[in-house]
Amino acid sequence: MGADNQQERLNANWVVGFVDGEGCFYVGINHPKNHLQILPEFRIVQHKNNEDVLFKLKDFFGCGNVTVNHGDRKEVRVRGIKNLKIIVDFFSKYPLKTKKQNDFEKFSEIIKLMSKKKHLSEVGLKKISELVCQMQRRKKRLKSSETICQTPKGEDIVRP
Amino acid sequence: MGADNQQERLNANWVVGFVDGEGCFYVGINHPKNHLQILPEFRIVQHKNNEDVLFKLKDFFGCGNVTVNHGDRKEVRVRGIKNLKIIVDFFSKYPLKTKKQNDFEKFSEIIKLMSKKKHLSEVGLKKISELVCQMQRRKKRLKSSETICQTPKGEDIVRP
Repeated sequence: MGADNQQERLNANWVVGFVDGEGCFYVGINHPKNHLQILPEFRIVQHKNNEDVLFKLKDFFGCGNVTVNHGDRKEVRVRGIKNLKIIVDFFSKYPLKTKKQNDFEKFSEIIKLMSKKKHLSEVGLKKISELVCQMQRRKKRLKSSETICQTPKGEDIVRP
Repeated sequence: MGADNQQERLNANWVVGFVDGEGCFYVGINHPKNHLQILPEFRIVQHKNNEDVLFKLKDFFGCGNVTVNHGDRKEVRVRGIKNLKIIVDFFSKYPLKTKKQNDFEKFSEIIKLMSKKKHLSEVGLKKISELVCQMQRRKKRLKSSETICQTPKGEDIVRP
């Protein structure tokens, strides 16, 4: 990173404040062909006019992609356990100050479980499902008959 | 302020990040009984669940009021030139990092003009009107026939 970029680097506390306002810790549950995918992601959405700050956030975390969210909105999105561990480590060191901290704590626990491959067991997946319900008030839980395997792309899925 | 509250005090860079996400520099133009009022305000809106952080922001700036915004949303709102000069001084020292900085610069100029009573002249009011249009892409401008006076409560108004 050049000296100019260093000067542009965001302040850690600014990042926490911005994420307290605009950030989203989300865990998607998909059901492709009766399987189940757990897809955690960290996302910050902005109007495309603020695209610059999304790239600065990507640089700050050293991971993520800037892409179209919807219409004239863009987002920096971080996926994948390896990258999300960077996010979790950062917000563990610099806690959020709003109620979003509650969501983050559940999210953090999910990432830690997934990094230990706990989501590949039925017990672990149920724990994750419970945490997702707590953080986003979801009704969806795994059925006891569902089991887990992986897609050819390495995505973890649940077979009924 | 007690030691406990000191520990709770928000970090300045966090405040900038949060306001980059959630803050609003707004200049209202009202027309009570064919007069014109310039009503600048700084506002941060949150779900009522995050009311705590609004009170912390009020404490941080040492001004403003926490009140209902709409439905289940609450806001910390700062009005009055004396208080808004505190806000302007803070964000002059700690610049915003998103495009909101452009709005802030116009807002800051308006507060400086109003603190010098420039809004009590037709020329000054036109300048303020231009700045409001620039910051919020408004169509409304003052008519050349409008003049300014004050209400019994000290609010500056324009008489047509």
